Amino acid sequence: MGKHHEVEIFSVFIANQDDTFVTTKTEEAVLEYGGIPGDLHFGLTKFAGARESMYKRGTEIFNRRQISIVSVEECAWIAEKLEVEQILPEWLGANIAIKGLGNLTKLAPGSRIVFPSGAGILCEGENLPCTQPGEVIQHKYPANANLTTRFVKASLGQRGIVGIVECPGKIRTGDTAKVIVNNV
Amino acid sequence: MGKHHEVEIFSVFIANQDDTFVTTKTEEAVLEYGGIPGDLHFGLTKFAGARESMYKRGTEIFNRRQISIVSVEECAWIAEKLEVEQILPEWLGANIAIKGLGNLTKLAPGSRIVFPSGAGILCEGENLPCTQPGEVIQHKYPANANLTTRFVKASLGQRGIVGIVECPGKIRTGDTAKVIVNNV
Repeated sequence: MGKHHEVEIFSVFIANQDDTFVTTKTEEAVLEYGGIPGDLHFGLTKFAGARESMYKRGTEIFNRRQISIVSVEECAWIAEKLEVEQILPEWLGANIAIKGLGNLTKLAPGSRIVFPSGAGILCEGENLPCTQPGEVIQHKYPANANLTTRFVKASLGQRGIVGIVECPGKIRTGDTAKVIVNNV
Repeated sequence: MGKHHEVEIFSVFIANQDDTFVTTKTEEAVLEYGGIPGDLHFGLTKFAGARESMYKRGTEIFNRRQISIVSVEECAWIAEKLEVEQILPEWLGANIAIKGLGNLTKLAPGSRIVFPSGAGILCEGENLPCTQPGEVIQHKYPANANLTTRFVKASLGQRGIVGIVECPGKIRTGDTAKVIVNNV
């Protein structure tokens, strides 16, 4: 087992609102194979889109984007670069905000985040930014110019990761989770 | 879509013999979610073992080791280092041997191998060597000393990758597949 860090589960969120990827804070959630039941991104499969252009659009493929994780430190850095008061994890569609791992986005694929319940998430690597969260941020700060596109540039390498549920179980706000770094 | 390479599917194999991970050559195989039906490693889940020591041994977890892929070039290099005539992909439990990508083992996780049928495999990174294939090799070359443990050292960084079936479909010997490198 490689190097590991302890991190705080700062908040847990679910994408359960109509017509938006924006998430809502919740005290705890259950991870099942496929993600968080009831969440927009839940499912062992998904339909291929712009991020999976090697497959014909709409083809059913395995869902490696089950869970979105951000760090509160990186959200603060993005806010600073955009010169806005704050960037909430909800606006990025995050399911989990962790505290204590500033460079979360650079966590090597194959790393794990393991929770006190025994639940575990397998890191599938950086979540490449797109303009959608930028639109949400622009809406929150109408006086600032070009936030939609500036978000993409400002958050590259700091927008967090996506992952797969490797072991089902509960995750709770305030949990201390272990990040086991894949150091191959 | 990142940089990509064309590779030849040199051989296809299935682990369908009793009591061994050693694979058998087959003309073609069907990829389903979970791997190759009938193969020893088929399944969307597996039981946690030594490679997943962050979970209690025997816990049911998601199976990210569905498919094992090696390159004929790396097999030749391992053979050269071990001073044996050849290392067959079967002895390593490979499901696919590709030709035309010498440094397959260093393929970034999140890269894809896409086949003419539309089937696709998601790279989960380097397959860390263990002594089991070394034992098979030792058995093939009884006159050479310490092959079991020498294999582990000689094949580190060259033993191929494991992957997940991202899109089901047929794979055939002689296929030209596309390797789409994840360059995040």
